[in-house]
Amino acid sequence: MPENKNSIGIVETKVQDLGELTLENGSILVPLEIAYETYGRLSEQKDNAILICHALSGDAHAAGYHKGDAKPGWWNEYVGPGKSFDTDKYFIISTNVIGGCKGSSGPTTINPKTGKPFGSSFPFVSITDMVNAQKKLIEHMGIEKLFCVAGGSMGGMQALQWSVSFPNHLKKCIVIASTSEHSAQQISFNEVGRQAILSDPFWNNGDYGDTPPKKGLALARMVGHITYLSDDSMREKFGRKPPKGNIKTTDFAVGSYLLYQGETFVDRFDANSYIYVTKALDHFSLGKGRILSENLSGVKADFLIIAYSSDWLYPPYQSREIAKALEVNALPVTFCEINFSKGHDSFLIFNTEQSNSIKHFLESSSWGE
Amino acid sequence: MPENKNSIGIVETKVQDLGELTLENGSILVPLEIAYETYGRLSEQKDNAILICHALSGDAHAAGYHKGDAKPGWWNEYVGPGKSFDTDKYFIISTNVIGGCKGSSGPTTINPKTGKPFGSSFPFVSITDMVNAQKKLIEHMGIEKLFCVAGGSMGGMQALQWSVSFPNHLKKCIVIASTSEHSAQQISFNEVGRQAILSDPFWNNGDYGDTPPKKGLALARMVGHITYLSDDSMREKFGRKPPKGNIKTTDFAVGSYLLYQGETFVDRFDANSYIYVTKALDHFSLGKGRILSENLSGVKADFLIIAYSSDWLYPPYQSREIAKALEVNALPVTFCEINFSKGHDSFLIFNTEQSNSIKHFLESSSWGE
Repeated sequence: MPENKNSIGIVETKVQDLGELTLENGSILVPLEIAYETYGRLSEQKDNAILICHALSGDAHAAGYHKGDAKPGWWNEYVGPGKSFDTDKYFIISTNVIGGCKGSSGPTTINPKTGKPFGSSFPFVSITDMVNAQKKLIEHMGIEKLFCVAGGSMGGMQALQWSVSFPNHLKKCIVIASTSEHSAQQISFNEVGRQAILSDPFWNNGDYGDTPPKKGLALARMVGHITYLSDDSMREKFGRKPPKGNIKTTDFAVGSYLLYQGETFVDRFDANSYIYVTKALDHFSLGKGRILSENLSGVKADFLIIAYSSDWLYPPYQSREIAKALEVNALPVTFCEINFSKGHDSFLIFNTEQSNSIKHFLESSSWGE
Repeated sequence: MPENKNSIGIVETKVQDLGELTLENGSILVPLEIAYETYGRLSEQKDNAILICHALSGDAHAAGYHKGDAKPGWWNEYVGPGKSFDTDKYFIISTNVIGGCKGSSGPTTINPKTGKPFGSSFPFVSITDMVNAQKKLIEHMGIEKLFCVAGGSMGGMQALQWSVSFPNHLKKCIVIASTSEHSAQQISFNEVGRQAILSDPFWNNGDYGDTPPKKGLALARMVGHITYLSDDSMREKFGRKPPKGNIKTTDFAVGSYLLYQGETFVDRFDANSYIYVTKALDHFSLGKGRILSENLSGVKADFLIIAYSSDWLYPPYQSREIAKALEVNALPVTFCEINFSKGHDSFLIFNTEQSNSIKHFLESSSWGE
């Protein structure tokens, strides 16, 4: 672990068995296991808990270091003593989504009925199901009301869904680089990723056991990765440079980078989970095909909505639509469009504007106070 | 053939054997066969010839109908009697690029030395090589100077390269939705397409014979197709609608559309050609890593540069860069950014602004006259 006075230090992921969960579509998920991490201390009044929600390929390890690791959690720049999510003040909870493959129940989980991984027999889970699972963990911790739910990208969708599903159980809501529903273009990129997995001869209808469809999953990640970066950030990082070393399958540095991203992804992610989680993303529709503001009429939280001008995957217009629909409901909304060149991934990278916006939003008194 | 008084009527693709071509990299391409079509009549002075250049998956069949076909050539809306490229006035030549698979020499051509298709032994061809091959055909036709060279996307690159390679052999140059070189992002999308083909178990290092890597090529086309459309045009066309019929591998209409695009593409395109032509695109660099305007110092043509505001694959800034570099060289440039919502594919779809711009540009007297 690199020395850093602002670091949380060593952390570990725990797994909580919560019994079962009835899913939106009526199926029952058993077992309901949730992988999670916590940072900071829960106050006696249990009123300082913040739930952080991860994006597509993220996990419960948001901050600090796992023993022996050189790399910290995915939002370490924003979570720690004195940071935006100040662990001296707040009790931070970060969970892995169900359907994923990082410790919570998902397709790689052993199905107690068969003794084998669920694989493709794992039930479809929605963003709402993910949020319902988180709620069960929060209840298990004895927390009645969250001080805040926050997340970027798919994490932002979960935060939004919390505000709709449990309006009385969160005070503040932070939604970054996200949307109330995927456009046809956003669905398309996920669709190509899924089709790449389905085209892999190792796919075997999802029951691939120990020989996963690596090439298909790697391709899915490569497509995805392009959409996470901006034209400018790719130019700056790679331009038209040739690849380093003797790589025969690509003529360009950006090609070898994408190949590396694809190859390393398959070691840390499950192909079925990729399909389940991208489907949850694509099926998420907060407006449910109606007018978005009408579907938000029961919402009560204070909102901070952040969008990035260079994010072409989740363009700022989608964040503005959310902000407008909340304002129609007379909800307090701070909308912040940040000029930062890193594309959709901007929310994962430290930038002062995002850091300060979150800090001030959490510290400001609530509308009702 | 649908009745249409503005149609050229029935046309056919011819193939001309032009011997051999020494490529930029020193290899010699034998045989040099060029597939082409012509529309209209060459004037006695041979001063009314216009060369039209196609994009990645295009061919020599730019206008009119092949016998028995219900669908006309790819630029039929712009080429015909009284149209932008008026066949009552001009003699239009349209060729298939070398490296392609639509009649000109490419990986599917039989290598006379082996009696088998070249496959992966076909030499690398550049945009400059494509243009040199076209020049040989033009010479063969006895045409000293083209009235105009025109094209969109990769066709625009060929038009640009003509103006650099043969400044004394064209009068006017039309470059639509194109660029002087691919950015890292543009390379990336092609790279993923190539990797999808290379990942297909039927790839066999390019020597796949009669069992081509269909799934890989279909994936490549799917990725490409997303980049040809705009966010708005996809929303309008598909939105979040479910697929028609009982399609089990996708939950969305846009998914079934992309699958269809991929599946039909493999019947009309060769996987090796896809790799060769996308590499030609990615390696094209008119500025050759230096200042673009300096590399254009010998250019003499009049230019019409058209960009589309909704084209995020070849964004307008790339067209503006070309226009500026030409203006630095005191060349007459008409730059036209068109608001048309169809994304990169806009240049293939009839719109009055593009139609009129081309018409007026061709009819206006040249700078030197």
